[in-house]
Amino acid sequence: MNLILVREEELGPGKLATLGGERAQHIREVLKAGPGAAVRVGLLNGPLGVATVARVEGERVILSCVFEESAPAAPRVDLLLALPRPKVLNRLWSQLAALGVGRIVLVNAAKVERCYFDSHVLLPEIYTPRLIEGLQQARDTRLPEVLVRKRFKPFVEDELEGFFPAGLRLVADPGGGQRVGDLFSARSGQAPERVLPAVGPEGGWVSFELDLLRTSGFEVVSMGARTLRTDTACIALLGAVAERLLQR
Amino acid sequence: MNLILVREEELGPGKLATLGGERAQHIREVLKAGPGAAVRVGLLNGPLGVATVARVEGERVILSCVFEESAPAAPRVDLLLALPRPKVLNRLWSQLAALGVGRIVLVNAAKVERCYFDSHVLLPEIYTPRLIEGLQQARDTRLPEVLVRKRFKPFVEDELEGFFPAGLRLVADPGGGQRVGDLFSARSGQAPERVLPAVGPEGGWVSFELDLLRTSGFEVVSMGARTLRTDTACIALLGAVAERLLQR
Repeated sequence: MNLILVREEELGPGKLATLGGERAQHIREVLKAGPGAAVRVGLLNGPLGVATVARVEGERVILSCVFEESAPAAPRVDLLLALPRPKVLNRLWSQLAALGVGRIVLVNAAKVERCYFDSHVLLPEIYTPRLIEGLQQARDTRLPEVLVRKRFKPFVEDELEGFFPAGLRLVADPGGGQRVGDLFSARSGQAPERVLPAVGPEGGWVSFELDLLRTSGFEVVSMGARTLRTDTACIALLGAVAERLLQR
Repeated sequence: MNLILVREEELGPGKLATLGGERAQHIREVLKAGPGAAVRVGLLNGPLGVATVARVEGERVILSCVFEESAPAAPRVDLLLALPRPKVLNRLWSQLAALGVGRIVLVNAAKVERCYFDSHVLLPEIYTPRLIEGLQQARDTRLPEVLVRKRFKPFVEDELEGFFPAGLRLVADPGGGQRVGDLFSARSGQAPERVLPAVGPEGGWVSFELDLLRTSGFEVVSMGARTLRTDTACIALLGAVAERLLQR
């Protein structure tokens, strides 16, 4: 926890926030911050700042917050992800938030089991704490937006353009000939404003899906011949994209 | 499991292998392969091939193996990793094998808890099955070599050169100015034969360690300002390096 995230509704008069649970425990036991000590805080979906521990009351910690720094830059990457196995998705939430993904769209695909959509890991009350955990790790305050779409074709045909109006769309497929870097080079050194990688299910996209993505402007890239688990593939691809997006 | 890995000692006369446990279960229940069916196999640290299911005896499956394809190309990436928390390392083993890492050196660092070295996740009988799981996912046969070094300085000063004689050494640090790609560009388009990324502990390398790595030929790179958990950082960095190493 490299940042303590506070929600707007937790702020009382005088910007005092009373924290319990994991955050309070972290402040007391890991940071060992007693009254008067400063801790790094952020307002969820808002600016960064510094808080002073006002009081410790049993397991609770009362912070006096000052938010003076602007919010971290918004991520330039979104993610279109065929809904993975619940266990895998559960592991992914915090890592996606830590890596910095603006919007996460979980879509159906031919090789996605329908029952995955009934999993509790798709409930906001389950995934929001995991996303916040990732933000606190990466010192970010912007909660990724999560969309769940049970129908692939209507999403790609009708919603995608509004959701992701401009930028580079790419889909990872072992059969793809281009490398991520080739797409960036083709833009003569001008990095795209936003990038939307699409990652398929464990068994891959079927040809109908790949064709639809291709006609919807997705460039097919390869990450090599190795077949990776969805979570590994996501993080490796996001790592490669983030590295290409880094400013010199 | 995209490949069934068989060990040399499991091969009987006529290249018959009797498998139990997870592999047999996978063949019976996921592949639903009965007598006569073909399954993709690999010999651990050897060639790839195809096996025919000879018999199914209760929970056991007897395969008749033919290894005719050469082994997959050896990974061009090694990893120097400050020993992470056991729980994190346990999650990493299969992913490192799947991504393709030739040698994994787990070293001590100032911010590594000494007790991590006593963890059972450092026992070969614990990590070998996890590495094999990653190889079976990625259709590789080469088991990564694992070295554990409790002393950082002697390893870097005395062993590193023999362990990793030539190639690109890089260390990720938020303070680094270069991007991974800058190091590749500096080689005028000629990708290095091998790459050795170094990933520090959650709290980062201390300046003594970073200085020693720098004087030992490691170039400091940044993956951006976000602080990532060790496993996420490893996979994202390996993803970025792999993408740069991909042949056109």
